[in-house]
Amino acid sequence: MKRIRLTIAYDGTGYCGWQIQKNAVTVQEELEKALCRLLGKETEVTGASRTDSGVHAMGNVAVFDTDTRIPPEKIAIALNHFLPEDIRIQKSEEVADDFHPRYCESEKTYEYTILNTPIGIPVRNRYSFHVCRPLDLCAMQEAAGILVGTHDFSAFCSAGSQVKSKVRTVLETTVEERAAPAGREIVIRVRGNGFLYNMVRIIAGTLIEVGQTRRTVASVEEAVRSGERDKAGPTAPARGLMLMEIRY
Amino acid sequence: MKRIRLTIAYDGTGYCGWQIQKNAVTVQEELEKALCRLLGKETEVTGASRTDSGVHAMGNVAVFDTDTRIPPEKIAIALNHFLPEDIRIQKSEEVADDFHPRYCESEKTYEYTILNTPIGIPVRNRYSFHVCRPLDLCAMQEAAGILVGTHDFSAFCSAGSQVKSKVRTVLETTVEERAAPAGREIVIRVRGNGFLYNMVRIIAGTLIEVGQTRRTVASVEEAVRSGERDKAGPTAPARGLMLMEIRY
Repeated sequence: MKRIRLTIAYDGTGYCGWQIQKNAVTVQEELEKALCRLLGKETEVTGASRTDSGVHAMGNVAVFDTDTRIPPEKIAIALNHFLPEDIRIQKSEEVADDFHPRYCESEKTYEYTILNTPIGIPVRNRYSFHVCRPLDLCAMQEAAGILVGTHDFSAFCSAGSQVKSKVRTVLETTVEERAAPAGREIVIRVRGNGFLYNMVRIIAGTLIEVGQTRRTVASVEEAVRSGERDKAGPTAPARGLMLMEIRY
Repeated sequence: MKRIRLTIAYDGTGYCGWQIQKNAVTVQEELEKALCRLLGKETEVTGASRTDSGVHAMGNVAVFDTDTRIPPEKIAIALNHFLPEDIRIQKSEEVADDFHPRYCESEKTYEYTILNTPIGIPVRNRYSFHVCRPLDLCAMQEAAGILVGTHDFSAFCSAGSQVKSKVRTVLETTVEERAAPAGREIVIRVRGNGFLYNMVRIIAGTLIEVGQTRRTVASVEEAVRSGERDKAGPTAPARGLMLMEIRY
């Protein structure tokens, strides 16, 4: 048996997230169906990040075990034949038997994209959250800096999470402007070795409020310190979020 | 009565093009429905460019006549309330009574986007045409230059067009590389004062063949000279095409 690691990109719009569930189409389900067709038997995959409904990915990671004779690096292309166009395996490779996408140490990078133009741009609807008033980029950058480091991120975790410790380390946060058709996009980039439920979307929602001058930079510090969910901003919509990369 | 000019952006994926037709949803139809709801009476619009099924727009133009008391520049926002999210009026303004979006002289700019990465990127599927092998950018640029000027573009016009003269002036063509997630995009930009049916998509299809070294730069010159459709390349898929701007 070999363990194969897949790097997976998808448009999350049409999926109820990553994880298999009843009565809903998910990325994991499509992937297992495609593997079953390719390998001729039921094959379970284990994903690194259980992205939420509507969240996109450039590089989610999943593994499965197989005794196929298809060369590991060829599995990506073979599998793509059986997958819908909105899921594409970017890479396939053999990894050690004990590699586990969730338990092995990793760094994840997410990007949250805000379309900051007076009027929405239809071709950006699926991949960004539209904010019409100009955002204060400098204030957002300052507030983003506060989140770097090891903190108890309880204030940035949605209810329903069952993890014990809410201490996480954010390695880097950047807030950058990019030219977009008819205006600008603001991209919040967050890199860390672990994230709580909805953490990046709550960070985005909080930084947007800072950019709108609806909250101060100091209030973000206060939110972290308090550990209270209602001291942070709202959960920004899923469509702006993209899991960019997971490094092991 | 006032004549109002609208600048319209849309994601063409869900529409059978611009022009109203039976048994198919079109952008013009959605726009007239929204105007009817806003103004309380049936209102016909005249569009500048009858984009094809699946083609996108950042700045198509249309006009209508009205005696509404809504200030011209406020019509955009009011109309957006009644439009689906994949159509957004970017601007509304009063123009002279004799302004006609098709008959007044104009310059149109189109962009054709090619995703040039080994494997497709799902979040770019709707807005680009995927070509997996690396394209020869320099050869494409050289071939694009041949098209600039006033030529008979019969070889770059799909059957079914009923125009008499197929002489058109292309003012500018550029082929540029842009960074894209996990690779590069190649953007063909064409500016001119008039285009034939499918002309930009056939230009794109021809330049892609040049980039693939499946045809020479000289063969593009030969295609123009011949005036024969089968001497030019295939019509590239609609989803890569975007009408960027119309200037009067």
